[in-house]
Amino acid sequence: MAEGGFNFNIVIVGLGLIGGSYAMALKRLNPSSICGIDVDENSLKEALNMGIIDQGFTDGKEVLKNADLVIIALYPEKIINFIKINIDNFKKGAVITDTCGIKEGLIDNINSFLPDDLDFIGGHPMAGRESKGIKVASKDIFNNANYIITPTERNCKENVMLIEKMAKDIGCKKVINISPKEHDRIISFTSQLPHVIAVSLMDSDLIESDIETFTGGSFKDATRVAVINSELWSELFFLNSDNLIAEIEKFQKSIEKVKNAIMLEDKCTLKDIFESATVKRKKMV
Amino acid sequence: MAEGGFNFNIVIVGLGLIGGSYAMALKRLNPSSICGIDVDENSLKEALNMGIIDQGFTDGKEVLKNADLVIIALYPEKIINFIKINIDNFKKGAVITDTCGIKEGLIDNINSFLPDDLDFIGGHPMAGRESKGIKVASKDIFNNANYIITPTERNCKENVMLIEKMAKDIGCKKVINISPKEHDRIISFTSQLPHVIAVSLMDSDLIESDIETFTGGSFKDATRVAVINSELWSELFFLNSDNLIAEIEKFQKSIEKVKNAIMLEDKCTLKDIFESATVKRKKMV
Repeated sequence: MAEGGFNFNIVIVGLGLIGGSYAMALKRLNPSSICGIDVDENSLKEALNMGIIDQGFTDGKEVLKNADLVIIALYPEKIINFIKINIDNFKKGAVITDTCGIKEGLIDNINSFLPDDLDFIGGHPMAGRESKGIKVASKDIFNNANYIITPTERNCKENVMLIEKMAKDIGCKKVINISPKEHDRIISFTSQLPHVIAVSLMDSDLIESDIETFTGGSFKDATRVAVINSELWSELFFLNSDNLIAEIEKFQKSIEKVKNAIMLEDKCTLKDIFESATVKRKKMV
Repeated sequence: MAEGGFNFNIVIVGLGLIGGSYAMALKRLNPSSICGIDVDENSLKEALNMGIIDQGFTDGKEVLKNADLVIIALYPEKIINFIKINIDNFKKGAVITDTCGIKEGLIDNINSFLPDDLDFIGGHPMAGRESKGIKVASKDIFNNANYIITPTERNCKENVMLIEKMAKDIGCKKVINISPKEHDRIISFTSQLPHVIAVSLMDSDLIESDIETFTGGSFKDATRVAVINSELWSELFFLNSDNLIAEIEKFQKSIEKVKNAIMLEDKCTLKDIFESATVKRKKMV
Protein backbone atom coordinates (compact mmCIF):
# COMPACT_ATOMS: atom_id res chain seq x y z
CA MET A 1 0.00 0.00 0.00
CA ALA A 2 1.47 3.35 -1.03
CA GLU A 3 1.80 5.67 1.94
CA GLY A 4 1.24 9.38 2.55
CA GLY A 5 -0.67 11.93 0.43
CA PHE A 6 -2.69 10.32 -2.32
CA ASN A 7 0.11 8.62 -4.17
CA PHE A 8 -1.90 5.53 -4.90
CA ASN A 9 -4.19 4.08 -7.50
CA ILE A 10 -7.89 4.30 -6.77
CA VAL A 11 -10.67 2.31 -8.37
CA ILE A 12 -14.31 3.25 -7.87
CA VAL A 13 -16.84 0.53 -8.56
CA GLY A 14 -20.31 1.79 -9.50
CA LEU A 15 -20.50 5.28 -10.95
CA GLY A 16 -23.91 6.32 -9.65
CA LEU A 17 -24.77 9.21 -7.35
CA ILE A 18 -22.41 8.02 -4.62
CA GLY A 19 -19.59 6.55 -6.73
CA GLY A 20 -19.67 9.56 -9.05
CA SER A 21 -19.49 11.90 -6.06
CA TYR A 22 -16.45 10.00 -4.68
CA ALA A 23 -14.76 10.31 -8.08
CA MET A 24 -15.41 14.06 -8.17
CA ALA A 25 -14.17 14.62 -4.64
CA LEU A 26 -11.11 12.32 -4.95
CA LYS A 27 -10.03 13.52 -8.39
CA ARG A 28 -9.37 16.94 -6.88
CA LEU A 29 -6.83 15.37 -4.50
CA ASN A 30 -4.62 14.31 -7.45
CA PRO A 31 -4.21 10.58 -6.74
CA SER A 32 -1.68 8.64 -8.85
CA SER A 33 -4.64 7.37 -10.84
CA ILE A 34 -8.40 7.10 -10.48
CA CYS A 35 -10.37 4.62 -12.58
CA GLY A 36 -14.00 3.61 -12.69
CA ILE A 37 -15.77 0.30 -13.16
CA ASP A 38 -19.41 0.20 -14.20
CA VAL A 39 -21.49 -2.25 -16.23
CA ASP A 40 -23.18 0.75 -17.84
CA GLU A 41 -20.93 2.16 -20.56
CA ASN A 42 -22.88 5.41 -20.65
CA SER A 43 -21.96 6.11 -17.01
CA LEU A 44 -18.30 5.47 -17.86
CA LYS A 45 -18.48 7.84 -20.84
CA GLU A 46 -20.18 10.47 -18.69
CA ALA A 47 -17.49 10.16 -16.01
CA LEU A 48 -14.72 10.40 -18.64
CA ASN A 49 -16.38 13.46 -20.17
CA MET A 50 -16.64 15.04 -16.73
CA GLY A 51 -12.92 14.40 -16.29
CA ILE A 52 -13.42 12.67 -12.95
CA ILE A 53 -11.85 9.32 -13.91
CA ASP A 54 -8.74 8.60 -15.95
CA GLN A 55 -10.07 5.39 -17.51
CA GLY A 56 -13.31 3.40 -17.45
CA PHE A 57 -13.78 -0.37 -17.40
CA THR A 58 -16.82 -2.64 -17.57
CA ASP A 59 -15.16 -5.26 -15.37
CA GLY A 60 -12.32 -5.57 -12.88
CA LYS A 61 -9.99 -8.02 -14.63
CA GLU A 62 -7.39 -5.55 -15.79
CA VAL A 63 -7.67 -2.48 -13.59
CA LEU A 64 -7.88 -4.10 -10.15
CA LYS A 65 -4.37 -5.56 -10.52
CA ASN A 66 -2.86 -2.14 -9.82
CA ALA A 67 -5.49 -0.76 -7.43
CA ASP A 68 -4.32 0.19 -3.93
CA LEU A 69 -7.74 1.44 -2.83
CA VAL A 70 -11.02 0.05 -4.14
CA ILE A 71 -14.23 1.90 -3.23
CA ILE A 72 -17.30 -0.17 -3.99
CA ALA A 73 -20.37 2.05 -4.30
CA LEU A 74 -22.90 -0.68 -5.11
CA TYR A 75 -25.97 -2.08 -3.34
CA PRO A 76 -25.15 -4.62 -0.61
CA GLU A 77 -25.72 -7.91 -2.48
CA LYS A 78 -23.80 -6.59 -5.48
CA ILE A 79 -20.82 -5.65 -3.30
CA ILE A 80 -20.50 -9.28 -2.23
CA ASN A 81 -20.91 -10.53 -5.80
CA PHE A 82 -18.33 -8.08 -7.12
CA ILE A 83 -15.71 -9.14 -4.58
CA LYS A 84 -16.41 -12.87 -5.15
CA ILE A 85 -16.14 -12.57 -8.93
CA ASN A 86 -12.93 -10.52 -8.67
CA ILE A 87 -11.33 -12.40 -5.78
CA ASP A 88 -8.29 -13.28 -7.90
CA ASN A 89 -8.01 -9.88 -9.55
CA PHE A 90 -7.24 -7.71 -6.50
CA LYS A 91 -3.68 -6.52 -5.85
CA LYS A 92 -2.09 -8.07 -2.73
CA GLY A 93 -2.47 -5.67 0.19
CA ALA A 94 -5.29 -3.71 -1.44
CA VAL A 95 -7.72 -1.88 0.81
CA ILE A 96 -11.35 -2.42 -0.15
CA THR A 97 -14.15 -0.29 1.29
CA ASP A 98 -17.83 0.21 0.59
CA THR A 99 -20.38 2.96 1.08
CA CYS A 100 -23.64 1.20 1.89
CA GLY A 101 -26.04 1.68 4.79
CA ILE A 102 -25.83 -1.74 6.49
CA LYS A 103 -22.72 -3.40 7.80
CA GLU A 104 -22.77 -6.46 10.07
CA GLY A 105 -24.09 -9.16 7.74
CA LEU A 106 -22.23 -7.71 4.79
CA ILE A 107 -18.85 -7.63 6.54
CA ASP A 108 -19.26 -11.11 8.08
CA ASN A 109 -20.11 -12.49 4.65
CA ILE A 110 -17.13 -10.84 2.91
CA ASN A 111 -14.66 -11.72 5.65
CA SER A 112 -15.75 -15.36 5.44
CA PHE A 113 -14.13 -15.74 2.03
CA LEU A 114 -11.64 -12.84 1.76
CA PRO A 115 -7.94 -13.91 1.62
CA ASP A 116 -5.68 -12.64 4.41
CA ASP A 117 -3.78 -10.32 2.08
CA LEU A 118 -6.89 -8.23 1.35
CA ASP A 119 -8.49 -5.86 3.86
CA PHE A 120 -12.18 -4.97 3.69
CA ILE A 121 -13.16 -1.94 5.82
CA GLY A 122 -16.83 -1.03 6.03
CA GLY A 123 -17.63 2.63 5.41
CA HIS A 124 -20.86 4.61 5.47
CA PRO A 125 -20.89 8.27 4.47
CA MET A 126 -24.06 9.80 5.97
CA ALA A 127 -24.77 11.51 2.68
CA GLY A 128 -27.34 10.94 0.00
CA ARG A 129 -29.87 12.52 -2.25
CA GLU A 130 -33.39 11.61 -3.31
CA SER A 131 -32.24 11.21 -6.93
CA LYS A 132 -29.83 8.66 -8.39
CA GLY A 133 -27.25 8.34 -11.16
CA ILE A 134 -23.97 10.02 -12.03
CA LYS A 135 -25.75 13.10 -13.43
CA VAL A 136 -26.75 14.18 -9.90
CA ALA A 137 -23.33 13.33 -8.41
CA SER A 138 -21.59 16.17 -6.60
CA LYS A 139 -18.47 16.46 -4.49
CA ASP A 140 -20.57 18.64 -2.19
CA ILE A 141 -22.63 15.73 -0.82
CA PHE A 142 -19.76 15.05 1.61
CA ASN A 143 -19.53 18.61 2.89
CA ASN A 144 -20.28 18.61 6.61
CA ALA A 145 -21.56 15.03 6.45
CA ASN A 146 -20.56 12.44 9.03
CA TYR A 147 -18.62 9.39 7.91
CA ILE A 148 -18.96 6.14 9.83
CA ILE A 149 -16.23 3.50 9.64
CA THR A 150 -16.89 0.03 11.05
CA PRO A 151 -13.53 -1.67 11.58
CA THR A 152 -13.18 -5.23 12.80
CA GLU A 153 -10.28 -7.00 14.51
CA ARG A 154 -9.27 -8.33 11.12
CA ASN A 155 -8.50 -4.84 9.80
CA CYS A 156 -5.01 -3.36 9.69
CA LYS A 157 -4.93 -0.15 11.73
CA GLU A 158 -2.98 1.72 9.07
CA ASN A 159 -5.66 0.92 6.49
CA VAL A 160 -8.42 2.15 8.82
CA MET A 161 -6.48 5.39 9.18
CA LEU A 162 -6.29 5.68 5.40
CA ILE A 163 -10.08 5.52 5.13
CA GLU A 164 -10.37 8.09 7.95
CA LYS A 165 -8.01 10.40 6.09
CA MET A 166 -9.89 9.95 2.84
CA ALA A 167 -13.21 10.77 4.54
CA LYS A 168 -11.82 14.01 5.94
CA ASP A 169 -10.07 14.94 2.72
CA ILE A 170 -13.28 14.64 0.68
CA GLY A 171 -14.96 17.11 3.05
CA CYS A 172 -16.63 15.11 5.82
CA LYS A 173 -17.06 16.93 9.11
CA LYS A 174 -16.63 14.05 11.49
CA VAL A 175 -15.35 10.50 11.17
CA ILE A 176 -16.56 7.93 13.67
CA ASN A 177 -15.36 4.38 14.30
CA ILE A 178 -17.99 1.98 15.61
CA SER A 179 -18.59 -1.76 15.47
CA PRO A 180 -20.65 -3.11 12.55
CA LYS A 181 -23.25 -4.47 15.01
CA GLU A 182 -23.68 -1.12 16.79
CA HIS A 183 -23.80 0.70 13.45
CA ASP A 184 -26.71 -1.39 12.26
CA ARG A 185 -28.63 -1.00 15.51
CA ILE A 186 -28.28 2.78 15.64
CA ILE A 187 -28.88 3.32 11.95
CA SER A 188 -32.13 1.33 12.11
CA PHE A 189 -33.42 4.02 14.46
CA THR A 190 -31.82 7.18 13.09
CA SER A 191 -32.16 6.52 9.38
CA GLN A 192 -34.23 3.47 8.48
CA LEU A 193 -37.15 4.19 10.83
CA PRO A 194 -37.64 7.77 9.52
CA HIS A 195 -37.78 6.33 6.00
CA VAL A 196 -40.39 3.74 7.09
CA ILE A 197 -42.41 6.54 8.70
CA ALA A 198 -42.19 8.80 5.65
CA VAL A 199 -43.49 6.19 3.22
CA SER A 200 -46.14 5.02 5.70
CA LEU A 201 -47.37 8.59 6.13
CA MET A 202 -47.63 9.12 2.37
CA ASP A 203 -49.45 5.80 2.11
CA SER A 204 -51.85 6.36 5.00
CA ASP A 205 -54.52 8.63 3.56
CA LEU A 206 -55.87 9.72 0.23
CA ILE A 207 -53.99 12.75 -0.87
CA GLU A 208 -56.34 15.33 -2.29
CA SER A 209 -54.93 16.95 -5.38
CA ASP A 210 -54.49 20.28 -3.63
CA ILE A 211 -53.35 18.91 -0.28
CA GLU A 212 -50.25 21.05 -0.58
CA THR A 213 -52.40 24.05 0.21
CA PHE A 214 -53.02 22.61 3.65
CA THR A 215 -49.50 21.63 4.52
CA GLY A 216 -47.16 23.74 6.56
CA GLY A 217 -43.61 22.58 6.92
CA SER A 218 -44.38 19.63 9.22
CA PHE A 219 -45.91 17.31 6.61
CA LYS A 220 -43.33 18.16 3.96
CA ASP A 221 -40.44 17.62 6.38
CA ALA A 222 -41.84 14.32 7.62
CA THR A 223 -42.23 12.96 4.07
CA ARG A 224 -39.17 14.37 2.31
CA VAL A 225 -37.50 10.93 2.19
CA ALA A 226 -40.69 9.28 0.90
CA VAL A 227 -39.14 9.91 -2.50
CA ILE A 228 -37.22 6.69 -2.12
CA ASN A 229 -35.03 4.40 -4.21
CA SER A 230 -37.18 1.30 -3.79
CA GLU A 231 -34.62 -1.25 -4.98
CA LEU A 232 -31.91 -0.01 -2.61
CA TRP A 233 -34.09 0.55 0.45
CA SER A 234 -35.94 -2.78 0.23
CA GLU A 235 -32.53 -4.45 0.29
CA LEU A 236 -31.26 -2.31 3.20
CA PHE A 237 -34.44 -3.02 5.19
CA PHE A 238 -34.34 -6.78 4.58
CA LEU A 239 -30.65 -7.01 5.51
CA ASN A 240 -31.24 -5.19 8.80
CA SER A 241 -34.73 -6.43 9.51
CA ASP A 242 -34.20 -7.63 13.11
CA ASN A 243 -33.01 -4.22 14.26
CA LEU A 244 -35.53 -2.33 12.13
CA ILE A 245 -38.54 -4.40 13.27
CA ALA A 246 -37.52 -3.79 16.88
CA GLU A 247 -37.34 -0.04 16.28
CA ILE A 248 -40.67 0.02 14.42
CA GLU A 249 -42.27 -1.81 17.34
CA LYS A 250 -40.87 0.65 19.88
CA PHE A 251 -42.23 3.47 17.74
CA GLN A 252 -45.61 1.71 17.48
CA LYS A 253 -45.80 1.53 21.28
CA SER A 254 -44.90 5.16 21.51
CA ILE A 255 -47.54 6.39 19.05
CA GLU A 256 -50.13 4.12 20.72
CA LYS A 257 -49.31 5.83 24.03
CA VAL A 258 -49.80 9.27 22.46
CA LYS A 259 -53.05 8.13 20.84
CA ASN A 260 -54.40 6.83 24.13
CA ALA A 261 -53.51 10.05 25.91
CA ILE A 262 -55.45 11.98 23.25
CA MET A 263 -58.45 9.62 23.47
CA LEU A 264 -58.56 9.89 27.26
CA GLU A 265 -57.82 13.64 27.24
CA ASP A 266 -54.94 12.75 29.54
CA LYS A 267 -53.23 16.12 29.46
CA CYS A 268 -50.66 15.17 32.07
CA THR A 269 -49.23 12.22 30.10
CA LEU A 270 -49.35 14.14 26.83
CA LYS A 271 -47.50 17.12 28.27
CA ASP A 272 -44.83 14.83 29.76
CA ILE A 273 -44.25 13.29 26.32
CA PHE A 274 -44.22 16.70 24.61
CA GLU A 275 -41.83 18.21 27.10
CA SER A 276 -39.44 15.29 27.00
CA ALA A 277 -39.51 15.31 23.18
CA THR A 278 -38.84 19.05 23.15
CA VAL A 279 -35.84 18.74 25.46
CA LYS A 280 -34.38 15.82 23.46
CA ARG A 281 -34.92 17.48 20.10
CA LYS A 282 -33.45 20.81 21.20
CA LYS A 283 -30.17 19.03 21.94
CA MET A 284 -29.83 18.26 18.24
CA VAL A 285 -28.71 21.02 15.92
CA MET B 1 -67.32 48.52 8.64
CA ALA B 2 -64.93 50.90 6.92
CA GLU B 3 -64.35 49.96 3.29
CA GLY B 4 -61.34 49.96 0.95
CA GLY B 5 -57.64 50.15 1.82
CA PHE B 6 -56.96 49.80 5.51
CA ASN B 7 -58.95 52.78 6.73
CA PHE B 8 -60.17 50.98 9.82
CA ASN B 9 -59.29 50.39 13.41
CA ILE B 10 -57.62 47.08 14.16
CA VAL B 11 -57.30 45.39 17.53
CA ILE B 12 -55.03 42.39 18.01
CA VAL B 13 -55.75 40.22 21.03
CA GLY B 14 -52.76 38.26 22.33
CA LEU B 15 -49.33 39.62 21.45
CA GLY B 16 -47.37 36.38 21.23
CA LEU B 17 -45.53 34.98 18.23
CA ILE B 18 -48.63 35.04 16.02
CA GLY B 19 -50.34 38.20 17.32
CA GLY B 20 -47.06 40.08 17.32
CA SER B 21 -46.38 38.96 13.75
CA TYR B 22 -49.83 40.21 12.65
CA ALA B 23 -49.10 43.55 14.30
CA MET B 24 -45.79 43.85 12.50
CA ALA B 25 -47.25 42.93 9.12
CA LEU B 26 -50.40 45.07 9.50
CA LYS B 27 -48.64 48.15 10.88
CA ARG B 28 -46.81 48.47 7.57
CA LEU B 29 -50.16 48.82 5.78
CA ASN B 30 -50.93 52.04 7.69
CA PRO B 31 -54.35 51.23 9.16
CA SER B 32 -56.31 54.07 10.84
CA SER B 33 -55.19 52.59 14.15
CA ILE B 34 -53.75 49.36 15.48
CA CYS B 35 -54.02 48.50 19.16
CA GLY B 36 -53.06 45.45 21.20
CA ILE B 37 -54.70 43.65 24.11
CA ASP B 38 -52.66 41.33 26.30
CA VAL B 39 -52.86 40.35 29.97
CA ASP B 40 -49.07 40.50 30.06
CA GLU B 41 -47.98 44.15 30.39
CA ASN B 42 -44.44 43.27 29.34
CA SER B 43 -45.68 42.09 25.96
CA LEU B 44 -47.60 45.35 25.54
CA LYS B 45 -44.50 47.38 26.42
CA GLU B 46 -42.41 45.35 24.01
CA ALA B 47 -44.96 45.88 21.20
CA LEU B 48 -45.05 49.62 21.93
CA ASN B 49 -41.25 49.79 21.94
CA MET B 50 -41.18 47.93 18.63
CA GLY B 51 -43.59 50.53 17.25
CA ILE B 52 -46.00 47.87 16.01
CA ILE B 53 -49.06 49.00 18.03
CA ASP B 54 -50.34 52.51 18.73
CA GLN B 55 -51.69 51.69 22.19
CA GLY B 56 -51.77 48.69 24.50
CA PHE B 57 -54.56 47.49 26.82
CA THR B 58 -54.86 44.73 29.39
CA ASP B 59 -58.59 44.27 28.64
CA GLY B 60 -61.10 45.04 25.92
CA LYS B 61 -63.50 47.43 27.70
CA GLU B 62 -62.31 50.63 26.14
CA VAL B 63 -60.56 49.78 22.91
CA LEU B 64 -63.05 47.31 21.40
CA LYS B 65 -65.75 50.03 21.13
CA ASN B 66 -63.98 51.52 18.09
CA ALA B 67 -62.54 48.34 16.60
CA ASP B 68 -63.66 47.45 13.07
CA LEU B 69 -61.46 44.37 12.86
CA VAL B 70 -60.53 42.22 15.86
CA ILE B 71 -57.89 39.55 15.36
CA ILE B 72 -57.80 37.10 18.28
CA ALA B 73 -54.47 35.28 18.41
CA LEU B 74 -55.15 33.17 21.52
CA TYR B 75 -55.47 29.45 22.17
CA PRO B 76 -58.92 28.01 21.32
CA GLU B 77 -60.57 27.98 24.78
CA LYS B 78 -59.30 31.48 25.48
CA ILE B 79 -60.77 32.79 22.23
CA ILE B 80 -64.23 31.71 23.39
CA ASN B 81 -63.69 33.19 26.86
CA PHE B 82 -62.46 36.47 25.45
CA ILE B 83 -65.50 36.90 23.20
CA LYS B 84 -67.91 35.92 26.00
CA ILE B 85 -66.38 38.36 28.47
CA ASN B 86 -66.37 41.18 25.91
CA ILE B 87 -69.70 40.41 24.26
CA ASP B 88 -71.06 43.88 25.13
CA ASN B 89 -67.84 45.71 24.30
CA PHE B 90 -67.63 45.02 20.55
CA LYS B 91 -68.62 47.73 18.04
CA LYS B 92 -71.75 46.90 16.03
CA GLY B 93 -70.78 45.42 12.68
CA ALA B 94 -67.27 44.48 13.83
CA VAL B 95 -65.51 41.64 12.09
CA ILE B 96 -63.86 39.18 14.49
CA THR B 97 -61.40 36.58 13.31
CA ASP B 98 -58.99 34.14 14.93
CA THR B 99 -55.78 32.39 13.98
CA CYS B 100 -55.95 28.98 15.61
CA GLY B 101 -55.52 25.51 14.14
CA ILE B 102 -58.96 24.00 14.78
CA LYS B 103 -62.26 25.37 13.59
CA GLU B 104 -65.54 23.44 13.70
CA GLY B 105 -66.21 23.17 17.44
CA LEU B 106 -64.81 26.64 18.05
CA ILE B 107 -67.00 28.34 15.45
CA ASP B 108 -70.15 26.43 16.45
CA ASN B 109 -69.57 27.44 20.04
CA ILE B 110 -69.01 31.13 19.26
CA ASN B 111 -71.91 31.36 16.82
CA SER B 112 -74.22 29.86 19.45
CA PHE B 113 -74.02 33.05 21.54
CA LEU B 114 -72.78 35.76 19.13
CA PRO B 115 -75.30 38.56 18.42
CA ASP B 116 -76.41 39.05 14.80
CA ASP B 117 -74.57 42.34 14.46
CA LEU B 118 -71.18 40.71 15.00
CA ASP B 119 -69.47 38.49 12.43
CA PHE B 120 -66.96 35.82 13.46
CA ILE B 121 -64.90 34.44 10.58
CA GLY B 122 -62.51 31.58 11.29
CA GLY B 123 -58.98 32.03 9.97
CA HIS B 124 -55.88 29.83 10.02
CA PRO B 125 -52.59 31.12 8.69
CA MET B 126 -50.44 28.07 7.91
CA ALA B 127 -47.51 29.72 9.61
CA GLY B 128 -45.73 29.10 12.85
CA ARG B 129 -42.43 28.66 14.54
CA GLU B 130 -41.08 26.29 17.16
CA SER B 131 -40.60 29.19 19.60
CA LYS B 132 -43.21 31.42 21.19
CA GLY B 133 -43.60 34.99 22.42
CA ILE B 134 -43.50 38.44 20.84
CA LYS B 135 -39.69 38.43 20.77
CA VAL B 136 -39.70 35.84 18.00
CA ALA B 137 -42.53 37.55 16.09
CA SER B 138 -41.78 38.47 12.48
CA LYS B 139 -43.83 39.81 9.60
CA ASP B 140 -41.99 37.26 7.46
CA ILE B 141 -43.83 34.26 8.92
CA PHE B 142 -46.65 35.00 6.45
CA ASN B 143 -44.40 35.17 3.40
CA ASN B 144 -45.47 32.46 0.96
CA ALA B 145 -47.65 30.82 3.62
CA ASN B 146 -51.15 29.61 2.84
CA TYR B 147 -54.08 31.19 4.67
CA ILE B 148 -57.22 29.15 5.25
CA ILE B 149 -60.54 30.90 5.86
CA THR B 150 -63.52 28.85 7.05
CA PRO B 151 -66.66 30.89 6.36
CA THR B 152 -70.14 29.73 7.36
CA GLU B 153 -73.57 30.72 6.01
CA ARG B 154 -73.81 33.21 8.83
CA ASN B 155 -70.87 35.26 7.53
CA CYS B 156 -71.30 38.41 5.46
CA LYS B 157 -69.57 37.94 2.09
CA GLU B 158 -68.02 41.39 2.22
CA ASN B 159 -66.40 40.59 5.57
CA VAL B 160 -64.99 37.31 4.25
CA MET B 161 -63.48 39.29 1.39
CA LEU B 162 -61.90 41.65 3.91
CA ILE B 163 -60.11 38.77 5.64
CA GLU B 164 -59.02 37.44 2.24
CA LYS B 165 -57.59 40.86 1.35
CA MET B 166 -55.84 41.15 4.70
CA ALA B 167 -54.25 37.68 4.28
CA LYS B 168 -52.87 38.63 0.87
CA ASP B 169 -51.72 42.06 2.01
CA ILE B 170 -49.67 40.62 4.90
CA GLY B 171 -47.82 38.42 2.41
CA CYS B 172 -49.66 35.10 2.16
CA LYS B 173 -49.25 33.24 -1.12
CA LYS B 174 -52.65 31.65 -1.37
CA VAL B 175 -55.97 32.14 0.41
CA ILE B 176 -58.38 29.22 0.51
CA ASN B 177 -62.01 29.09 1.62
CA ILE B 178 -63.16 25.77 3.03
CA SER B 179 -65.81 24.61 5.51
CA PRO B 180 -64.80 24.37 9.19
CA LYS B 181 -65.56 20.62 9.16
CA GLU B 182 -63.39 19.94 6.12
CA HIS B 183 -60.62 22.13 7.54
CA ASP B 184 -60.44 20.07 10.72
CA ARG B 185 -60.46 16.78 8.86
CA ILE B 186 -57.67 17.75 6.46
CA ILE B 187 -55.55 19.49 9.08
CA SER B 188 -55.65 16.43 11.33
CA PHE B 189 -53.78 14.60 8.55
CA THR B 190 -51.52 17.28 7.13
CA SER B 191 -50.48 19.02 10.35
CA GLN B 192 -51.58 17.28 13.55
CA LEU B 193 -50.49 13.75 12.52
CA PRO B 194 -46.93 14.86 11.60
CA HIS B 195 -46.68 16.46 15.05
CA VAL B 196 -47.88 13.24 16.72
CA ILE B 197 -45.31 11.28 14.70
CA ALA B 198 -42.47 13.67 15.54
CA VAL B 199 -43.02 13.48 19.31
CA SER B 200 -43.60 9.72 19.16
CA LEU B 201 -40.35 9.24 17.27
CA MET B 202 -38.40 11.29 19.82
CA ASP B 203 -40.07 9.30 22.57
CA SER B 204 -39.57 5.86 21.05
CA ASP B 205 -35.93 5.05 21.80
CA LEU B 206 -33.17 6.11 24.12
CA ILE B 207 -31.24 8.84 22.46
CA GLU B 208 -27.53 8.32 22.90
CA SER B 209 -25.70 11.51 23.68
CA ASP B 210 -23.98 11.53 20.31
CA ILE B 211 -26.89 10.30 18.25
CA GLU B 212 -26.55 13.36 16.08
CA THR B 213 -23.42 11.82 14.61
CA PHE B 214 -25.57 9.07 13.15
CA THR B 215 -28.38 11.15 11.76
CA GLY B 216 -28.57 12.28 8.20
CA GLY B 217 -31.32 14.66 7.26
CA SER B 218 -34.16 12.14 7.57
CA PHE B 219 -34.30 11.95 11.38
CA LYS B 220 -33.86 15.67 11.84
CA ASP B 221 -36.57 16.47 9.31
CA ALA B 222 -39.00 13.97 10.81
CA THR B 223 -38.55 15.40 14.32
CA ARG B 224 -38.23 19.13 13.65
CA VAL B 225 -41.70 19.81 15.08
CA ALA B 226 -41.01 17.66 18.16
CA VAL B 227 -39.97 20.98 19.71
CA ILE B 228 -43.60 21.61 20.54
CA ASN B 229 -45.68 24.08 22.56
CA SER B 230 -47.27 21.49 24.82
CA GLU B 231 -50.07 23.67 26.18
CA LEU B 232 -51.26 24.72 22.72
CA TRP B 233 -50.94 21.37 21.00
CA SER B 234 -52.63 19.35 23.76
CA GLU B 235 -55.59 21.67 23.37
CA LEU B 236 -55.59 21.45 19.57
CA PHE B 237 -55.38 17.63 19.72
CA PHE B 238 -58.19 17.29 22.28
CA LEU B 239 -60.48 19.63 20.33
CA ASN B 240 -59.98 17.66 17.12
CA SER B 241 -59.59 14.23 18.63
CA ASP B 242 -62.15 12.35 16.50
CA ASN B 243 -60.42 13.34 13.27
CA LEU B 244 -56.94 12.94 14.69
CA ILE B 245 -57.55 9.48 16.18
CA ALA B 246 -58.93 8.34 12.80
CA GLU B 247 -55.80 9.61 11.04
CA ILE B 248 -53.46 8.05 13.62
CA GLU B 249 -55.23 4.72 13.12
CA LYS B 250 -54.92 4.90 9.34
CA PHE B 251 -51.23 5.63 9.80
CA GLN B 252 -50.90 2.73 12.27
CA LYS B 253 -52.41 0.37 9.66
CA SER B 254 -50.03 1.71 7.09
CA ILE B 255 -46.86 1.27 9.17
CA GLU B 256 -48.05 -2.21 10.22
CA LYS B 257 -48.34 -3.08 6.52
CA VAL B 258 -44.78 -1.87 5.89
CA LYS B 259 -43.52 -3.76 8.95
CA ASN B 260 -45.15 -6.98 7.79
CA ALA B 261 -43.69 -6.61 4.31
CA ILE B 262 -40.23 -6.24 5.87
CA MET B 263 -40.76 -9.25 8.18
CA LEU B 264 -41.93 -11.44 5.31
CA GLU B 265 -39.30 -10.06 2.91
CA ASP B 266 -42.24 -9.28 0.65
CA LYS B 267 -40.35 -7.16 -1.85
CA CYS B 268 -43.32 -6.83 -4.18
CA THR B 269 -45.59 -5.17 -1.58
CA LEU B 270 -42.77 -3.00 -0.26
CA LYS B 271 -41.84 -1.75 -3.72
CA ASP B 272 -45.49 -0.95 -4.49
CA ILE B 273 -45.71 1.17 -1.31
CA PHE B 274 -42.35 2.86 -2.02
CA GLU B 275 -43.23 3.65 -5.61
CA SER B 276 -46.66 5.00 -4.76
CA ALA B 277 -45.17 7.14 -1.96
CA THR B 278 -42.51 8.46 -4.32
CA VAL B 279 -45.06 9.45 -6.97
CA LYS B 280 -47.33 11.16 -4.40
CA ARG B 281 -44.48 12.99 -2.70
CA LYS B 282 -42.96 14.19 -5.96
CA LYS B 283 -46.22 16.02 -6.71
CA MET B 284 -45.57 18.24 -3.71
CA VAL B 285 -43.07 21.03 -4.05
